[in-house]
Amino acid sequence: MPLWGGVEAGGTKFVCAIGENPGLVLAVTRFPTKDPTTTLEQVIKFFREQEKKFGPIAAVGVSSFGPVDPDPQSPTFGYITTTPKPGWASTDVAGYLRRELEVPVGFDTDVNGAALGEFRWGAAEELDTFIYLTIGTGIGGGGLVNGKLMHGLVHPEMGHMRIPHNTNDDPFPGICPYHGDCWEGLASGPAMEQRWGKPATELPDDHPAWRLEAEYLALALHNLILAISPQRIIMGGGVMQRTALFPLVRQRVQELLHSYVKHPQIISKIDEYIVPPALGNRSGVLGAFALAEAAWQSEKQNEA
Amino acid sequence: MPLWGGVEAGGTKFVCAIGENPGLVLAVTRFPTKDPTTTLEQVIKFFREQEKKFGPIAAVGVSSFGPVDPDPQSPTFGYITTTPKPGWASTDVAGYLRRELEVPVGFDTDVNGAALGEFRWGAAEELDTFIYLTIGTGIGGGGLVNGKLMHGLVHPEMGHMRIPHNTNDDPFPGICPYHGDCWEGLASGPAMEQRWGKPATELPDDHPAWRLEAEYLALALHNLILAISPQRIIMGGGVMQRTALFPLVRQRVQELLHSYVKHPQIISKIDEYIVPPALGNRSGVLGAFALAEAAWQSEKQNEA
Repeated sequence: MPLWGGVEAGGTKFVCAIGENPGLVLAVTRFPTKDPTTTLEQVIKFFREQEKKFGPIAAVGVSSFGPVDPDPQSPTFGYITTTPKPGWASTDVAGYLRRELEVPVGFDTDVNGAALGEFRWGAAEELDTFIYLTIGTGIGGGGLVNGKLMHGLVHPEMGHMRIPHNTNDDPFPGICPYHGDCWEGLASGPAMEQRWGKPATELPDDHPAWRLEAEYLALALHNLILAISPQRIIMGGGVMQRTALFPLVRQRVQELLHSYVKHPQIISKIDEYIVPPALGNRSGVLGAFALAEAAWQSEKQNEA
Repeated sequence: MPLWGGVEAGGTKFVCAIGENPGLVLAVTRFPTKDPTTTLEQVIKFFREQEKKFGPIAAVGVSSFGPVDPDPQSPTFGYITTTPKPGWASTDVAGYLRRELEVPVGFDTDVNGAALGEFRWGAAEELDTFIYLTIGTGIGGGGLVNGKLMHGLVHPEMGHMRIPHNTNDDPFPGICPYHGDCWEGLASGPAMEQRWGKPATELPDDHPAWRLEAEYLALALHNLILAISPQRIIMGGGVMQRTALFPLVRQRVQELLHSYVKHPQIISKIDEYIVPPALGNRSGVLGAFALAEAAWQSEKQNEA
């Protein structure tokens, strides 16, 4: 079996792994995200050391923070493009790894990578249209539609959708520097921390914070269900570690949709419809394995 | 060239046409929507008469009001499913036409049909991911993602997304029987008429109604751009006949996105990004030609 290199490129930390699939991960490392040169050299160093132990990597996949250019036909494919993160704008991540390691490199957003991992080995096997969301430091969303990763003009940025915000009930103005009270501005982990004065992890299950959070999550899910008609919605990220959120969100989505979408998945099986990732907090780096595999297969097809 | 039969099945009227493409339409007819049996018999009668004049139809396409079942693998493919329209729930439209006319029948939502028409002959040629919206008696949306029509769990129902509604500026409660002030509840033609006390067609261009309408359209477009990342958005339907809406909507979409999506199509070429349908008010029935063509091609492939 070919050996994959996986890179989860996050704004605060990088996770690198080498392995064949979720059941066979041979090595993992984590380190803080510094400037691009230092960070990417550390990635190369890890893979070169692992290759000495386990043999050559067939391909590398990168699930990256963004915005990114995920279009293999574009001259800036594999770049992190216009990120506000200092030093990282216009960084050619995939090209650098490809030149150094001389293997095919798959590259996409963190959420599209995680979605592909769930499709390949997790909670979305055999689906052709589903959404993967992360609710954490930010809110991001990606997925597959008609059996392929969502790209289009660039790639989705679901966290910045605007949702109803009742300022009488919740006067918090939101923290998004672009949109104020967009979904991410109201419902990300940092938004919860600012609104309630302490980290979300310290708020007990019966704190009103969680019902409000479920409201914002359900409003956005309502919109995504009506915009995309996904066959499933997978919700990961730090905030969703609070598993008490799932039943609150499911119930509120049903109430908001008000039986308008009369499908059994929503009316009676919503427990199977809105779910946590099967790959848990490893869906980023394992999704990168799936991106590596896809890049490797694509290169083989082009050669044939 | 094969001859297509097209049916635009609307809740108030049916349009049927026979032809090869938008430049070669041989006959068109329109009649009010009555009960299913009467209406569908009228469709059959029209096509039989045209076949005597122009020769046999190769396939029929239907762009239908809904909700519908557009999944060819489903036992209820081609049905109008749970519509509140009296008599029409669980109507097997495609099956009836297929049995009577003995040709392949393509079947999809009205907006997906129109989207396929714009893809085949109109404002979306060579795009793989775009949205078609109709803003009229209701608000509907469909489109292609990754080169195929959007289906997923059922099909999109974009008009029922929830958008911010500032009840201080606009106390109108919305008219959607399911969701009150969802997008359609606030911004459809009938919503405009109820809010302002006269039909939208009678409101002059400088009436504040149009700026408010542009606001609601732009809020929903903002969400659709971030959820789906379309390469283009085509806006048709009765309300969009007011062409003065286009510049208002484009400007407001740019303001709402606030340069978050830094793509030239949005930053500098938004006139080419948010556009009216190239097929105008014929996109429904010409989209049905495209659905007929797709069904015919699919049947040929299955035979081969």
